[in-house]
Amino acid sequence: MNKKVEAYIDSHQAEAVALLQRLCSQKSIAATGEGISEMVEIVLDELKKRGMEPVLYETGGNPVIYAPMKGRSERIFGFYDHYDVQPEGDEALWTSPPYDIVVRDGNIWGRGVADNKNGIAAKLCAIDAWLASYGELPCGIKFLIEGEEEIGSPHLQSFADAHPELLACDGYNWESGYKEEDGPAEIVFGNKGLLYVELCVRTAKGDSHSYQAGIVPNAAWRLTHALRTIMDPETYKVLIPGFYDDVRPLTWNDYAVLEGDPFDEEGFKKHLGIDGYINGASGKEMLRRLYYEPTANIAGFCSGYVEKGVKTVIPAYAFVKMDFRLVPDQDPEKIVQQLREHLDRNGFDDVSIIVHSAQPAYRTDPDSPFAKAVKTALLGLFGKVSIHNSDSGTPPMRIFCEKQHIPSALFGGTSAATSNIHAPDEHISVKTYIEEIKMMAAVMEELSKI
Amino acid sequence: MNKKVEAYIDSHQAEAVALLQRLCSQKSIAATGEGISEMVEIVLDELKKRGMEPVLYETGGNPVIYAPMKGRSERIFGFYDHYDVQPEGDEALWTSPPYDIVVRDGNIWGRGVADNKNGIAAKLCAIDAWLASYGELPCGIKFLIEGEEEIGSPHLQSFADAHPELLACDGYNWESGYKEEDGPAEIVFGNKGLLYVELCVRTAKGDSHSYQAGIVPNAAWRLTHALRTIMDPETYKVLIPGFYDDVRPLTWNDYAVLEGDPFDEEGFKKHLGIDGYINGASGKEMLRRLYYEPTANIAGFCSGYVEKGVKTVIPAYAFVKMDFRLVPDQDPEKIVQQLREHLDRNGFDDVSIIVHSAQPAYRTDPDSPFAKAVKTALLGLFGKVSIHNSDSGTPPMRIFCEKQHIPSALFGGTSAATSNIHAPDEHISVKTYIEEIKMMAAVMEELSKI
Repeated sequence: MNKKVEAYIDSHQAEAVALLQRLCSQKSIAATGEGISEMVEIVLDELKKRGMEPVLYETGGNPVIYAPMKGRSERIFGFYDHYDVQPEGDEALWTSPPYDIVVRDGNIWGRGVADNKNGIAAKLCAIDAWLASYGELPCGIKFLIEGEEEIGSPHLQSFADAHPELLACDGYNWESGYKEEDGPAEIVFGNKGLLYVELCVRTAKGDSHSYQAGIVPNAAWRLTHALRTIMDPETYKVLIPGFYDDVRPLTWNDYAVLEGDPFDEEGFKKHLGIDGYINGASGKEMLRRLYYEPTANIAGFCSGYVEKGVKTVIPAYAFVKMDFRLVPDQDPEKIVQQLREHLDRNGFDDVSIIVHSAQPAYRTDPDSPFAKAVKTALLGLFGKVSIHNSDSGTPPMRIFCEKQHIPSALFGGTSAATSNIHAPDEHISVKTYIEEIKMMAAVMEELSKI
Repeated sequence: MNKKVEAYIDSHQAEAVALLQRLCSQKSIAATGEGISEMVEIVLDELKKRGMEPVLYETGGNPVIYAPMKGRSERIFGFYDHYDVQPEGDEALWTSPPYDIVVRDGNIWGRGVADNKNGIAAKLCAIDAWLASYGELPCGIKFLIEGEEEIGSPHLQSFADAHPELLACDGYNWESGYKEEDGPAEIVFGNKGLLYVELCVRTAKGDSHSYQAGIVPNAAWRLTHALRTIMDPETYKVLIPGFYDDVRPLTWNDYAVLEGDPFDEEGFKKHLGIDGYINGASGKEMLRRLYYEPTANIAGFCSGYVEKGVKTVIPAYAFVKMDFRLVPDQDPEKIVQQLREHLDRNGFDDVSIIVHSAQPAYRTDPDSPFAKAVKTALLGLFGKVSIHNSDSGTPPMRIFCEKQHIPSALFGGTSAATSNIHAPDEHISVKTYIEEIKMMAAVMEELSKI
């Protein structure tokens, strides 16, 4: 990449870390609304500092921040990021407080440093490097920063439908991406879908004394009985009839890209503190499940007395939060329907379904000019790259990209294995964060040549 | 009953209500320890006011209060009660605050008014009535008031083993008992056992992002899969092999006493807000299940993210609190062992069992002199009584009574159907509370005659 720009980035690491600290020290939880408006102010401030004129778009939920900047070439590099984060959970499980952003052991620690405020910060630093070195960017850029990614982007589709002109560009860096500290740079060209539902059941007006357990219906048992019809405990296959019907068969290329996958099977086990993967899966089979299999996950359940000690009650209410990760051609709306019919057929018409989020999977074209520019830039920086056809998570690329056939890719600095995103002790290595800044600066340059 | 004593009780209702208000306005939660020491002070104060010299026995948990008082005859009427209460739960579900004890619609409302501070208060008022009328009690009494009943009386057995001489008496009123406002006085001569366990499973060091759901074990699914092996969703039979092996067959008398049972089947459904009892049970079959069937109840379960909105995590930890109500000859220790073996045999050796409480069922002799005195006294007051051979709950009568063959019975003023014990809006009718005072005073008189 451009030596002058690279030298600027190398000599301004402290400023880059300070910027990420500023963004992450502000709590901004979409699930509860805490700190959202304060966070928006900070992001607007950082954009304005660099000469942009950001516009806030109200969505009915948290606003989308739009901020374009012209460059030397006509090409435009789109930046999708989000300023919201997951709840920090039990603060006692964090080594240092989640919003007291510290550097320790070569890592930056705190909620949002890896998912995904690093994405916002790295792009701002790449802009700083180009502007300081040449007074202009090599290509145009546009920021589109939403505030509801961690709750499934419920207003992003209507925003996209209302403002197609804001979305138009030559390709997106979506949030950020994965790079283990000593692993290859990874580029991801697609993602799984996400159906997030809550199943709940009420069996009585209120909890009652468990001496009546022989005769009074129990909501916790009821929900347990419903859940047992959804998942096979042996095969971990989803038992909802029709669930797998529309799954698109894997291509030769889908299998081929697993070859170079840098996933550290043993290291990740150790990191999680698990003895093994589900059903002892390993190697390619484990990767196939991770990237290409749809899943049914219990994200949480609760019913009755869950405090310290003993209480003998029959719970009147129970709920479970479930997320289904979907693969190409599975339609989340259809799966909600299948789930409803399945519950009814098994006598669980008293179990209600609340749909929190429903997004299909998405794949982008790995041979587009944008995709090639990304590969060229990252090969130039690191000598090798690792390509994925699908992320195992659900960045909602489809919403911005599908209608206008805009290419999109995840790449950047988060560790998929050890960054603890969505978990306590979220962190990112300073080294990969600085590399992420270089990736953004280098792709700007490559994109200006196409 | 004695007219002078009865007249005193009738003309001192306001004092009786005020005493119950004083006892219940003090929170005293055994599960968390809140307010226990303050509660003990109040009870000691009320005992001393009546000339008793109470002694506190340390147990390793909350202390037992022992307070005897001599009477005209040598007979001794034992009073087992408890000064602890269940947690109040979600205060928003209470019509008036749980520790702001108010009289409304002819009822006294608040935590503990029906379970079981009414028992303590009614006995104190009965003593007041005899002392005011005759300067002495017709028989001796002894209070034994513990503070851990609502967490399964974990230290009561060792207290009883250490102090058999304190327990000795001619018969116990155990806590209180059931009387619907317009129903017959009920007398209960036995109780189910209680095995309270917590099953928990840890599948990883901490929660992780649900994009890994295809490969990383999920504690919530794991526990769901374990629970499905414990209960048949169709028959509601417990599936642990051997669980029913030792169940003592019902006697002719067990069936016979169901005849006069005042349980208001329709009214109780309406009260709970349920459409029907489990598997549509009704009439004698419903009563059989309520009084004589062992049960497996989920009192609460929790795992993962259970707050507002959406969080996509794989829970690393899950637990369920379960209570098993046991019938005569079922051994709780044996059932723990059967549960352990059952889980192991089904591949759930990673699911741990924590035993919170383990008490066998108990039956007392309905033909003992004490039992006859109770029946005579209550028949004298109300003209009819309803006999139960077993309570559906687990007052731990066995602990005090088994070794010395002391008779014991539940009778008093709580409504089994509508008092909302262990639930929000716990209440007791003023009328049955006053009747409870009369029952205690009348049994003292009958007992002095044997």
